[in-house]
Amino acid sequence: MAEAKQLSGAGLRGQVAGDTALCTVGKTGAGLTYRGYDMAELADKAEFEEVAYLLLYGKLPNRAELSAYKSKLKSLRALPAALKSVLELIPADAHPMDVMRTGCSMLGNLETEHDFSGQHDSVDRMLAVFPSIINYWYRFSHEGIRIETATDDDSIAAHFLHLLHGKKPSELHVKVMHASLILYAEHEFNASTFAARVCASTLSDIHSCITAAIGTLRGPLHGGANEAAMEMIQDWASPDQAEQALLGKLERKEKVMGFGHAIYRESDPRNAIIKKWSGQLAEEVGDKVLYPVSVRCEEVMWREKKLFCNADFFHASAYHFMGIPTKLFTPIFVCSRLTGWAAHVMEQRANNRIIRPSANYTGPEAEAWVDIDKRD
Amino acid sequence: MAEAKQLSGAGLRGQVAGDTALCTVGKTGAGLTYRGYDMAELADKAEFEEVAYLLLYGKLPNRAELSAYKSKLKSLRALPAALKSVLELIPADAHPMDVMRTGCSMLGNLETEHDFSGQHDSVDRMLAVFPSIINYWYRFSHEGIRIETATDDDSIAAHFLHLLHGKKPSELHVKVMHASLILYAEHEFNASTFAARVCASTLSDIHSCITAAIGTLRGPLHGGANEAAMEMIQDWASPDQAEQALLGKLERKEKVMGFGHAIYRESDPRNAIIKKWSGQLAEEVGDKVLYPVSVRCEEVMWREKKLFCNADFFHASAYHFMGIPTKLFTPIFVCSRLTGWAAHVMEQRANNRIIRPSANYTGPEAEAWVDIDKRD
Repeated sequence: MAEAKQLSGAGLRGQVAGDTALCTVGKTGAGLTYRGYDMAELADKAEFEEVAYLLLYGKLPNRAELSAYKSKLKSLRALPAALKSVLELIPADAHPMDVMRTGCSMLGNLETEHDFSGQHDSVDRMLAVFPSIINYWYRFSHEGIRIETATDDDSIAAHFLHLLHGKKPSELHVKVMHASLILYAEHEFNASTFAARVCASTLSDIHSCITAAIGTLRGPLHGGANEAAMEMIQDWASPDQAEQALLGKLERKEKVMGFGHAIYRESDPRNAIIKKWSGQLAEEVGDKVLYPVSVRCEEVMWREKKLFCNADFFHASAYHFMGIPTKLFTPIFVCSRLTGWAAHVMEQRANNRIIRPSANYTGPEAEAWVDIDKRD
Repeated sequence: MAEAKQLSGAGLRGQVAGDTALCTVGKTGAGLTYRGYDMAELADKAEFEEVAYLLLYGKLPNRAELSAYKSKLKSLRALPAALKSVLELIPADAHPMDVMRTGCSMLGNLETEHDFSGQHDSVDRMLAVFPSIINYWYRFSHEGIRIETATDDDSIAAHFLHLLHGKKPSELHVKVMHASLILYAEHEFNASTFAARVCASTLSDIHSCITAAIGTLRGPLHGGANEAAMEMIQDWASPDQAEQALLGKLERKEKVMGFGHAIYRESDPRNAIIKKWSGQLAEEVGDKVLYPVSVRCEEVMWREKKLFCNADFFHASAYHFMGIPTKLFTPIFVCSRLTGWAAHVMEQRANNRIIRPSANYTGPEAEAWVDIDKRD
C-alpha cells in the first residue's frame, strides 16, 4: 500500500472527512445553517416538520407539501405488535438510549430496507414512530400502562408530549418542543452523524445506520449533557448556593456539563433560543429557583472560565418545566437528530466510497510463535 | 474554528485516523499480523480462543490461562429469557445480521455496561453468547425448535456447529472453524472497526459499539462477500461453465464478489489458508464441482484482471461443505471479528479523544427565509 498520511490532531479534529451540503457549523458570520438557512430563523419561524422536510427532501415545503407530509407522518405512528412485545421485555431500569437503539434495530427486522428506493419512506416511518417507541416503553415499564400510540396530534412535538403525559399539551409546550427539535436536528460531522456515514459507506441498510448513530450519541461526551446539567442544577436551592458549589467544582477541576463546544469558540448559537424558551416556561410555572440558578451558572462559567452555555444547558430547565423526566432528554435528541443522520446517510449513498482509514501502528514489530507449554 | 485540512482521497483512504498496536495489514513483508504475530502462523497452530485472548488480553495465554479462559466462556453460553423471547419475535425472513444487531442491542438492556471496569467480562459474555443468539433464532424461526444453548463443547468453533446441526461436529470441521475464526478476527481500521471506535470515542457502552460495528459489517461492500460468492458459484455445474459465465460477467463489467481488496495489492494472506481447508473439506465430502469451480474462478480472475481471491472467496465453499446455510456466513464473521472490534474499543478508551472530523461544505451559501405561502 501507499504510505499513509500522518495527520496532526487526535480524533480527526479539524480534518475534512468528506463533503456535505447539509450544514455549516461555526463558519465565520454564519453560526449554524441547515442547507443555507440560518438555524436561529428556522427555530423562530418554522415547525419541526418543515425543517425535517428541508433536511430530508432538500427544500422548505410549501403549504400543500407540508400538509401532506404531516398527514403522512401522522399515519405512521402505530407500533407493530412484535415491536411492542420487545419493548415490554425491556426492564424499567434499562438505559433509555439502549431502548431507542433496540427499538430501531428491531424495527429493521420487521420493516427491512431491502434497497434504497424506499429510503425516504423508511426514514419518515422512523420519524413518526420513534416518539411512540420511547414513550410506549417508558409508560409500560414505569406505570404498567399500554398506551395507544396512534394519536391525531398535529405534530411530532405534540405527539411526543401527548404520549408522555397522557393528555394534549399546551400551545406553549408544543412551541418549545418545535424549537428544541429544530435546534438539535443537524450538526455536520459530529460523532454520531459520522458513525452513521461510516455505516452507510458499506451500503448497509438505514436501520443499521441509525442504530449506530443512536449508540454513538449515547456516550456522555456527546448526547446526555443536558441530563448531566439537570442532575447538577436540581440540587441547588438558590443562585448563591449554585455559585458557591460551581466555584468548588471548578477548583476541584471537575467537568461541568453543558458548557463549551468542540467547534464553537465564543458562543453556541443554539443557546440564546432555548434560554429564551426556558425563561418563558419558568414564568409559566412560577419557577423562582431553577431558571435563576441556570442564569447564575452561565454568568459564573463565563466570568471564571470564559466558557459559554452550549445547546444543552438551558434545555435541562426547559424540559424540566415541561414535566419531562430527565432520563428522556437524550431520546428526544434522537427524535430530532434522526433527520440530520438520515439526510447524511442519503448524501453518503448518493456519492459513496467506503470509509476505511489507515492506522498508525504502535505495536510490536514481529513476535515469534511460542508453543503453549513454553509461554509465561 | 481553524481552517480544516483538505485531504485527497474520499473515504479517508490512506489517511491515518489514529494509533493501534493490534494489527498490521499489508505492511511490506508482514502481510497480516495480530499484536506482532503472523496471522498465518496463528491460523495454523492456535485455537481461536488463544487468538481472542491475545487480542483482548494482550498476550498468548499459557496452558493454565487458556484453560481458565475456555472454562469461563463455556459458562456464559446460556441466553437470558427476555433475549430468547426477543429472538422468537424476529421473523424467519429477517436479515440474519439484523438479528445479530438486535440480539447484541437487547443484551445491552439486560446486562448493561455501567462503567468500563467490567469491560472484559462484557466482551467475554458476548463472545460466548453470540453463537447462541444466531443459532437460537435460526433454528426457532426455521425449524420451530427451541434449542438449549448451554453446551459443554470445548470451543466456540464446536459450540457454533453443535448448535446449528444439533450434533457434535467432526474434528476436521472444528479445526476449519478455528482457522476461519482466526482469519476473520482482526483487520485494523476497516469500516466496521472504525465505526466501533467512533462510537467508543463518545465513551458509550460496549454494546452500542459492537451494535454499530455489526450494522456496518452488514453492508455488501464489507461483510457478505462470502455469501455473494456462494450465490454466484452454486449455479455453476463445472469449471468450464464457470469460466464461460465469469468471462460474461467481466465483459458486462459486473462486480464479482470475493476478489481484490482495499488495502492488499497482490494477494490476501488469508486466502491460501482457507483455500487449503476448502480443498480438504471437498475431499471429505467427495465434492467434484464446487471446489474445482472455485479454483477455476481464481485462475480466470487472475489471468483476466490480475485480481486475487480475498479471505471471502474460498470461505464460501468451505462453509458450504460444512453444511452451513449461506445466510449464516456473515454472522460467523461477527462471532470472530467481535474480538478485534472489542480490542479496538478498549484501545480507544485507553487513550481517547472524541472522533469528530470536519466536512467540506458544498451547499448553498446563504438562503433567505421565505414565508410558507410564498414558497414554490
